[in-house]
Parts: sequence; C-alpha cells; structure tokens
Amino acid sequence: MKALSLDMGGSHIGCAVVEDQRILAKDSLPVTEAPGLAALLGPLAEMLHALLGSVGIAGADCAGMAIGFPGIVDFRTGTIHATLKKYDDARHMDLKEWCRSEFGLPLAMENDARMALLGEVSAGAARGFDDVTMMTLGTGIGGAALMHGKLVRGKHAQAGCLGGHLPVDFEGRLCACGNIGCAEAEAGGWAVPGIARGWPGFAQSALASPASFGFREIFNAAAEGDSVATAVRDRCIAVWASNAVANIHAYDPEVVVVGGGVMQSADLIIPRMQEHVNRHAWSGWGKPEVRAAALGNEAGLLGAVPLLREVLDGANF
Amino acid sequence: MKALSLDMGGSHIGCAVVEDQRILAKDSLPVTEAPGLAALLGPLAEMLHALLGSVGIAGADCAGMAIGFPGIVDFRTGTIHATLKKYDDARHMDLKEWCRSEFGLPLAMENDARMALLGEVSAGAARGFDDVTMMTLGTGIGGAALMHGKLVRGKHAQAGCLGGHLPVDFEGRLCACGNIGCAEAEAGGWAVPGIARGWPGFAQSALASPASFGFREIFNAAAEGDSVATAVRDRCIAVWASNAVANIHAYDPEVVVVGGGVMQSADLIIPRMQEHVNRHAWSGWGKPEVRAAALGNEAGLLGAVPLLREVLDGANF
Repeated sequence: MKALSLDMGGSHIGCAVVEDQRILAKDSLPVTEAPGLAALLGPLAEMLHALLGSVGIAGADCAGMAIGFPGIVDFRTGTIHATLKKYDDARHMDLKEWCRSEFGLPLAMENDARMALLGEVSAGAARGFDDVTMMTLGTGIGGAALMHGKLVRGKHAQAGCLGGHLPVDFEGRLCACGNIGCAEAEAGGWAVPGIARGWPGFAQSALASPASFGFREIFNAAAEGDSVATAVRDRCIAVWASNAVANIHAYDPEVVVVGGGVMQSADLIIPRMQEHVNRHAWSGWGKPEVRAAALGNEAGLLGAVPLLREVLDGANF
Repeated sequence: MKALSLDMGGSHIGCAVVEDQRILAKDSLPVTEAPGLAALLGPLAEMLHALLGSVGIAGADCAGMAIGFPGIVDFRTGTIHATLKKYDDARHMDLKEWCRSEFGLPLAMENDARMALLGEVSAGAARGFDDVTMMTLGTGIGGAALMHGKLVRGKHAQAGCLGGHLPVDFEGRLCACGNIGCAEAEAGGWAVPGIARGWPGFAQSALASPASFGFREIFNAAAEGDSVATAVRDRCIAVWASNAVANIHAYDPEVVVVGGGVMQSADLIIPRMQEHVNRHAWSGWGKPEVRAAALGNEAGLLGAVPLLREVLDGANF
C-alpha cells in the first residue's frame, strides 16, 4: 500500500511518499516562523506533488494521506480536540476536504506520538509485537500505547498519549498540562534546565556558562565529570525509568520503545531504564524489554500505512 | 440471567445467587484461619447449594458461576498467574472441573477488582457508563478499568488492575509489589500506620495510644483535631487524588469510582478528590466525575452476570 504522509513537528513538517514499511521519497518544510497551518497548505501540497513526481507515482496510486498531529486528535471523527498552541488554526480547518480536492484522497489524522508508535511497530524497534508502549523524551514527554495490536485511544481520544503526564511526584512541580509532578514536569526538556539552575552548586557547574542548555549539554557535561550535570542527568533517568514502570503497569506491554533526541545517549539510558524495570516492574510473566526507537523522525511518517490500513479495514475501537 | 457468584476476599468468601442486577440470596464463609482454597471447596459448595435451595432455583437454571479472585487472573484461559499469598493453592487446582462436577455449570474467573468494577457498572455507581476507572482503597489499592465497555486486561492480564501501583513518588517507599513509591506504598492501608508512626510529633498524637490503628482511627482522630492524624489523612487524600489523575490520564474515563472501607468517610474524601481532578486532570472534553462506590462488598458478587455475559457473547478482547 502506498500513501502520502505528513508529520507535523514543532520546527518542521515532514512530508513523504511511503509504501508499506518504506519511505519512497521525503522532504521537510521548516515552520519555525509560521503563524499557523493555513499558510502552509499551499507549500505542503506543492512539496507532496513534487515528491510524487520524483518517484513517478500519481496521487491516485495512493490509498490515502495520513497526518500525525501534535495534539489530542480523535481519529474516528477527524476532530482536533486540543493543540499544544502550534497549528492551533487546524482545529477549524477542513483538512479532509483539502486532501480530497488537492489529491483526490481520503485523509486519516492521528496524534503524532501514536503515529510514531505505529511506525516503530510496523517498521522499527517493535516489529512483531502487539503490545507496546512508547515514550518520546523531548521538549515534552510523549506517549502512546498499543494493546492487542490496537492503539489505545479511549472515550475522548486522550488515552495512551498522556503517558508522560502520569505523575512521578504527587508533591512535585506544576506541569504545562496543569497537573502536579508529571514525568514531563520533572524530566521533560522544557523543565530540566530550570531544575538544573536550582541545583545546589549550579553556579560552579559547566552548565552555568552557556546562555541556554538542554539534554545534549547536560549529558556532555556529565560525561566530563561535572557533578551538577551528573546529578541532573541521573535524576532525569530515574524519572524516565519510574515513568516506564508506570506505563508498564498501566498497559501491560511486552516492549517499551523510547524515542526522542536524547536517545543519542541510548547506550547510557536504555540499560539503566531496563535495570530499573527488571527490578521494579510487576510482571509475573517475564520482563518487558526497553528498546531505543529505531526510526528517529521517520517513525511518524511510517505510521501512515498502518493507520490507513485501520481505516480501510473498518476500524474497530 | 441467573448465576452463582463467589467473591474471594481476604477474611471471607462472599457467596451469592444473583439475577442480573440483583442478589437473590447471599451468605459469607469466614476464611481467616484457612490454609488455602482446597479445604474450602466443600463448605463453599454446601453454602451455594443451600442458597440455591433457599430461593428455589436449581443449578441448571443458572448460566454459570463467576469467581472474583484476589490476584492476576487470565480470564481468557482461566489461569491464575499470581496471588497475593492468599488462596495460593488455587493456581494448581482445576476449578472449572469442580464447578462442572458440583453444579453442572461453566466457570468464569476474573480479578476481584475487575469484578467489583463490573458490578458497579452493571448495578452501582457507574451505571450507564462505558468508560470507568475504579480505585479500591483498602489494605492495598486495587484498580480496574473499563474502556469502550470492555475490561482493560492486557497481554498478560495485568493491565488496569495495577492502578494502585502507578507511582506517586519516584523516590518514595518500597511497595509490596517491588516498585518504588506506588500509590499503595504511600497511602495503602498496610503502609499508612508506618508512615504515621514516623511523622514528627507522633508520640503526642492520639494515634500513639492504641496498639494498632488504621484508616478509621486516623480519620476519627483527625476529626477530633489531632494534628498528626490530620496531616496523615490529608496526605493520604492527596496521594489518592494524584493517583486518580494518573488513572484518568491512563484510561480516559468518564467516571472514577472509589471504593473500599475508607469510603465511610466519602463525604470528606470524594469532594477533595473531585476538586483535585477538576484542577489538575487534563481533559479538554470536561471533567471526569469522582463517585463513591455504591455497592460495598456486593459489587464483586454483582459482577457475575456481566462477566458471564461476556463469555456467552464470545468475548472479544
């Protein structure tokens, strides 16, 4: 099955023509300065037509288009319930009609983390598994869950994708979502610099020099022996590991896939998370495996075919 | 539909003949001193036959028997994967054969918290809802979840029923389950007395006098103005409220049903949990309602008909 695929990230929109588990052609539209989605539809259509042309495929050869959207999306109705501010105008746009008129194709839309999970299950780190939880460690902590081969969606389309908003500290920091002590509030990319700045001895840390820093700088400084960076890094890993157990206890998966930019340090992070899971997760049947995501930012694009297949099979929720 | 129902609790086994949402006759077998289930099968059969006789119903008039078991039970295979020590010999018993030979009936077995949830959905606090999470605040913190009208079970039959083992403190106390900082380890009945004893000023608290105390004594002393009891009580409610949000974020329910003996103080607990949920749960669609369980220890017994109906309908997981 061939499909068009869009992955709407914070700084760019990934565009691709895909066939089953392969990307035939892809490109990326930078969107940093864009005010919303409306102004991007023209350039996106142009990019997709060019990609189709580059591999000699007509729109009609595709089964449909899939969009991974950063927010709460009800796949069943195509409704965007909530955005993270980005692309907020999409809530009031008729993207199905745009897709139909521009490409003659049906559109399926789903939360971006769920798309990435579908991609990893179809073509990446969780191939062959029906019960998988995914954590994406980035600016926020994204989540998605597959049970019995089906995405966990829930009554209001928000189940599974709030895995990063399971608390790790009931007396902890206020999260961007409004909850207290979410994993994301304690170890998400937006929260960690503030936590580091409040760490005892921060002024003497290598992290105090740059105007801004993130996971990369923290992990690098920790590797150099910086004590504050080491403490903050280890605390992050402890939070992620606790959150992995929470996700395991909630969804009973065989595999936990961990993605996000910080997986550049997968060699350090994954074994520690696995050790924590082995010691602390309840599982009479064996131990869920913690695996680094394999597809990077292609995961969401490769979720297109499994999502469209669900539509064409007549989705059963 | 009529059914036989057993609810295997820690101190007794509830026995009933039920019809749809009603209990026709019930009795209770004390088991405090019993070494296991094998020695109890005779008395249980006798009690069930007597209950049938008392309402003039033959075993053959029932659709089957349902058992609510305190442990990880795979409903699909009838396998008990893990017990909480109690009735541990049941793992190696052929209860289906016992039920067939004793009553000529098929047997369905499920985790006791899931049975209580089915009862509350069928006949109690969550009638009419398809998306419900249940928390049972007792010695442990039990959990169960219903999504789209179906019990959440998971690959290894442990999803949903570990809601009390979602962490509330990633640096917290070791839980009986082996995890760190579970809601149960921070505010389950077995953990709270120890937490109270370690509270600053405990020696001056009214709780210091009795040899042992539990939620009842803590709530009573708090109502009398005891400052340690008040602090411990309020901390428990904060943990339960945080755990309610965790369950909401995991399973996206419309209603959270809260049961357990401590619901004798529902007037105090439920409004506080609801307020916390209203302030902190992510839910673009509205606010999940926090409700006290309505059926007490009859909930599990009344789960029998919905469970058997699932079997007879040809369960779809």
